[in-house]
Amino acid sequence: MNINIKKAQKKKSKPDHTILGFGKYFTDHMFTMEYTEQAGWINPQTIPFDDMAMSPSTTVFHYAQSVFEGLKAYINNQNEVVLFRPYQNARRFQKSCLRMAMPTIPEDDFVKAISTLVKIDKDWIPTQEGTSLYIRPFMIAKDEILGVHPSKTYQFIIILSPVGHYYPKGIKPISISINPIYSRSFFGGTGDVKCAANYSISLLAQKEAKEKGFDQVLWLGGKEHNIITEVGAMNMMFVINNEIITPKLDGTILAGVTRDSVITLLREWGYTVIERDMTVDELIHHLMNKSVQEAFGTGTAATISPVGMIEYKGTHYLISENIGVLSKRIYDTLNMIKLKTGSVHPDWVHLVK
Amino acid sequence: MNINIKKAQKKKSKPDHTILGFGKYFTDHMFTMEYTEQAGWINPQTIPFDDMAMSPSTTVFHYAQSVFEGLKAYINNQNEVVLFRPYQNARRFQKSCLRMAMPTIPEDDFVKAISTLVKIDKDWIPTQEGTSLYIRPFMIAKDEILGVHPSKTYQFIIILSPVGHYYPKGIKPISISINPIYSRSFFGGTGDVKCAANYSISLLAQKEAKEKGFDQVLWLGGKEHNIITEVGAMNMMFVINNEIITPKLDGTILAGVTRDSVITLLREWGYTVIERDMTVDELIHHLMNKSVQEAFGTGTAATISPVGMIEYKGTHYLISENIGVLSKRIYDTLNMIKLKTGSVHPDWVHLVK
Ligand SMILES: Cc1ncc(COP(=O)(O)O)c(C=O)c1O
Ligand SMILES: Cc1ncc(COP(=O)(O)O)c(C=O)c1O
Repeated sequence: MNINIKKAQKKKSKPDHTILGFGKYFTDHMFTMEYTEQAGWINPQTIPFDDMAMSPSTTVFHYAQSVFEGLKAYINNQNEVVLFRPYQNARRFQKSCLRMAMPTIPEDDFVKAISTLVKIDKDWIPTQEGTSLYIRPFMIAKDEILGVHPSKTYQFIIILSPVGHYYPKGIKPISISINPIYSRSFFGGTGDVKCAANYSISLLAQKEAKEKGFDQVLWLGGKEHNIITEVGAMNMMFVINNEIITPKLDGTILAGVTRDSVITLLREWGYTVIERDMTVDELIHHLMNKSVQEAFGTGTAATISPVGMIEYKGTHYLISENIGVLSKRIYDTLNMIKLKTGSVHPDWVHLVK
Repeated sequence: MNINIKKAQKKKSKPDHTILGFGKYFTDHMFTMEYTEQAGWINPQTIPFDDMAMSPSTTVFHYAQSVFEGLKAYINNQNEVVLFRPYQNARRFQKSCLRMAMPTIPEDDFVKAISTLVKIDKDWIPTQEGTSLYIRPFMIAKDEILGVHPSKTYQFIIILSPVGHYYPKGIKPISISINPIYSRSFFGGTGDVKCAANYSISLLAQKEAKEKGFDQVLWLGGKEHNIITEVGAMNMMFVINNEIITPKLDGTILAGVTRDSVITLLREWGYTVIERDMTVDELIHHLMNKSVQEAFGTGTAATISPVGMIEYKGTHYLISENIGVLSKRIYDTLNMIKLKTGSVHPDWVHLVK
């Protein structure tokens, strides 16, 4: 893949790192390439970040044929630009594309497109501790036709957003509400891929949880709607009797890159990690017994989100007001690895050169 | 709602009715209005059909926050422009919006926007028997931010497409394949609303069915994935022992306007219509016994689609090579009502004046 580079004539001014938040500001450039059935992927290029002209009849508006990924670039104190396990995202992107009847992109091209773009906008990577450059590759269906069938044309785009520290005031455990009614996925569905559809489906429950004062929704799944699955954009782990229990990859939850990394680290540290179904009744039982030592979510946005309180059918179960010892150890280790500042898992770090 | 009218400077040439197909050509104008939290719905207007400038960071691309409707305008031999039960679509649109955490539009405004636009592009309504003007109202999330939460800004758009006869060569029963693996919806999900997400989720199964030579997928649902639900864009009805059995509205299937109209007509004609769960085993049992007298789908696109053959796990069950007597009666009656050429259910017809 030969990427054509078109540089922006004038550069935007960069926002102060204290106001970054998440996904609000975008860099000077974007990557784009197009797909047609006849030609395959064509016109790979980086161009100035700009609006796109789109017909109101475009498939993506009507039928949500769209998939995406999310990962981060960091700059370390040797001034190196590093990505965390980007080939994991490349492979998950391929899986998402196949499930949504979309064309795939070779892993190397996916990572090359990211690296090329990140290099061009390198001066957008914030340097303050905890900040990073969020990378959003996505693919949308571009046919201008209303028939319900897979599009024949697509566009693959990457945009970059400098993001602030997830915990600007120090790590604070979040509260999550177990939703007894809504589902975000189901067997035979698309819960195990990163398609746009999954997120729209989850918005109402998320909004209702927020209105009741909770940070996130913990989704139930399984035939009887009683199995603990995952949180909005995080996989869940529970430390019970010094073992770590996490929902198994049953086809309804996303295989998080952070989840995989955390499981690997924990096992290397000698912990027992059990990937299995856990019913909400079992979790509540453990919460009532106070045998849940730690609970945390894993995901690219926050790396580790300690869960301080879980609500279910009106009852609040307190876990802890502080981050747990193990959660903290994982958090610190992963952040160290991501900045390539230690000797642990250098294989997980991809240098942008 | 006061709609500002901006007319196109030059008009496109109209395609011949024989090549129309579905949703390929669009008229000269579109309706659009915008929503902000502060102002509510603003700038209702009809403007020339044109591309829209959209940031690659727009919510709809990433999280599929989008809903739509589909209905048709016809022109009858008194040169009247008629819509079929548009308030049903207006109400279903509201339901879809609420489920996707989006703002609603008053029913009267919804119908007025459609009527205004259809009147402006009246000369686009094809007049040949079986043709019509397909109306596609849709709403998309417009925030330019990557956080996963309901957008604060939206755009409501209506586009129009002249569509050809669904059965240009006469009604031919379709073949449907019961998919034993994939799901399109589940309890607690969004199967009962018309959100973009539902359709992207269905594309792969639809593609695989086409590749095996079947026209459509018949989706299974229920906790055990063994309940007959619906077809891509149609509700299903089975005539068994002179009774009509149709899946009940259990929250996982769309409440079709055609479905409701057909049930109403059938009951008025003295038939027993039973809305209930039917397992795939029961259906196969009836198919083997040859006790399925007729099977048909109901939906705006084709009104009635007779099903000639059903495939399940490799076995083909033939129902009939021709449209059934009852299916034909419903088809003819509904088409008569839609053209306002009879005295049956004038209440279902909305005159565009
Ligand atoms: C639904 C869902 N689950 C889990 C995750 C965590 O995955 P990762 O660790 O790869 O960020 C994400 C975020 O990407 C997600 O969207
Ligand atoms: C999933 C689904 N089911 C059923 C229908 C039929 O509904 P209606 O009769 O309102 O067109 C449609 C089409 O709108 C649909 O998309």
